[in-house]
Amino acid sequence: MELIFLGTSSAVPSKHRNHPGIALKAFGEIILFDCGEGIQRQLANVKISPMKINQIFISHLHGDHILGLPGLIQSMGFRGRDFNSPLHIYGPPGLEKTKQSIFNLGYFSVDFPLIIHEIDEGIVVENDEYVIEAVKTYHNVENLSYSVYEKKKPRFLREKAIELGVDPGPDFGKLHNGIEVEVNGKIIKPEQVLGNDRDGVKLVYSGDTKPCDEMIRFAKDATVLIHESTYNSSDEDKAYNNFHSTSAQAAKIAKEANVKELILTHISTRYTNINDLKKEAIEIFENTKVANDFMKINLSKIHKKYENK
Amino acid sequence: MELIFLGTSSAVPSKHRNHPGIALKAFGEIILFDCGEGIQRQLANVKISPMKINQIFISHLHGDHILGLPGLIQSMGFRGRDFNSPLHIYGPPGLEKTKQSIFNLGYFSVDFPLIIHEIDEGIVVENDEYVIEAVKTYHNVENLSYSVYEKKKPRFLREKAIELGVDPGPDFGKLHNGIEVEVNGKIIKPEQVLGNDRDGVKLVYSGDTKPCDEMIRFAKDATVLIHESTYNSSDEDKAYNNFHSTSAQAAKIAKEANVKELILTHISTRYTNINDLKKEAIEIFENTKVANDFMKINLSKIHKKYENK
Repeated sequence: MELIFLGTSSAVPSKHRNHPGIALKAFGEIILFDCGEGIQRQLANVKISPMKINQIFISHLHGDHILGLPGLIQSMGFRGRDFNSPLHIYGPPGLEKTKQSIFNLGYFSVDFPLIIHEIDEGIVVENDEYVIEAVKTYHNVENLSYSVYEKKKPRFLREKAIELGVDPGPDFGKLHNGIEVEVNGKIIKPEQVLGNDRDGVKLVYSGDTKPCDEMIRFAKDATVLIHESTYNSSDEDKAYNNFHSTSAQAAKIAKEANVKELILTHISTRYTNINDLKKEAIEIFENTKVANDFMKINLSKIHKKYENK
Repeated sequence: MELIFLGTSSAVPSKHRNHPGIALKAFGEIILFDCGEGIQRQLANVKISPMKINQIFISHLHGDHILGLPGLIQSMGFRGRDFNSPLHIYGPPGLEKTKQSIFNLGYFSVDFPLIIHEIDEGIVVENDEYVIEAVKTYHNVENLSYSVYEKKKPRFLREKAIELGVDPGPDFGKLHNGIEVEVNGKIIKPEQVLGNDRDGVKLVYSGDTKPCDEMIRFAKDATVLIHESTYNSSDEDKAYNNFHSTSAQAAKIAKEANVKELILTHISTRYTNINDLKKEAIEIFENTKVANDFMKINLSKIHKKYENK
């Protein structure tokens, strides 16, 4: 599981920071969180085909988080995306109107299903491999923060299986996937050859929000919390007035939620030197990084590092 | 007068080519032609404030030529553009619907007047300094090509003025600006101290079009013709089917219109090496350049170079 930051600015982009967008490379697909203007070129830069994106999660309907959607959708159309490859976009109420407006911007049509999910809090997507959940947090318009939780299979106890007479091969795979097998007329159940339940990677992305207790609960024990940090503490009044967070506030959330690592993003272009932002966060929560465009984070590696601690 | 290419790709952008957009720095302002996704970052890259843009001319309503409008407009709002600074956007019918859709994309409002001009052929803007004209050309949706013609003042005949008793100073300026002055009870008329009429810079931008006679007439004797060249001759069938031009076709237009210089743009990302495009154009019309993002062209210098030829 890998994170790729496609845009790390706040409302006004700069030469080095594009509007927000985060790609999660996992489970054989690319899951996109927010889609600011310019995301299709940012994807081209890191050689990710937009065709691999089947799900986009929008935190809120401010321009800097959605204005890359029209171009990205159109680009998928140009590449021949068809009715077999629906694109699902999740976000707060109003997203259906956003879709209609995209199709009315100019001459614009696509041949694939564009399925809008106006969602509330709770589990949004769940399958055998992961769960994606949303929670309402506090911006000046409705904002959803998202978590992705990897369902990690228990370890397969290979020697135990051999001891029970199972031959290495397809039966190992079946058992690891929870399917019982018959060996010499004897039924072997998965639980006989599987280790204890294991926690998977937990990723949390704040979208735009002021610091809040909901986030502490939602991010509890996360592997990585990506939290907005539009300002530093010297502009705490601006953060308060605009329903944003400072880096110190994001660090406090990370500490109280007991996350493993914190990544600050959504950085105001007023800060050309991000050292101050980082410094005040690290004083509160040591494992803090400030995101840059194209920064990659290996989530599985971080998870493994802390798994046995 | 200077041209700055902000985006030179066709429908699909690449790492090195943004969606279309051309800034004309002249007459104390920035005039923008087309506004593809990402233009606000391209402007940041060349240190042009969006606040200097008061007029945008849209060739046609395909996404690659308009999807930078929502972000650019919003960005002007963030910078405090107010009711004293209207933004005028000119383009083909349908542009008013584009505006309404922009405001319905999400939470979006601005405090300055956004004035849409759905235009036809003919003179679009005229003042003391320049004339902007439009002509319909041939794409698969309505496309307007634009020309900008600089009204150049005749030379001021300084020695003649002194001979007539005019003192160097404010009266020189008045006469050069067409206002008569009184010297020792005698009226001096501008025509007494002004040289012959002079041609100014003529710039023509094609937007997206197949090659056509209208363009030859419209671009007649232009200083610079910016013509789309989505394909080279090996893909002439694609150019034909998609109502685009090849570089050879653009060069033929330039030659027949007797322009001074031709700049090819709207280059398909299929061509990673643009030498072929350039080569086939130069064989037909020598003074050809292929545009790159951030390329700057000094129009006044080109005009001067050919003025006395």
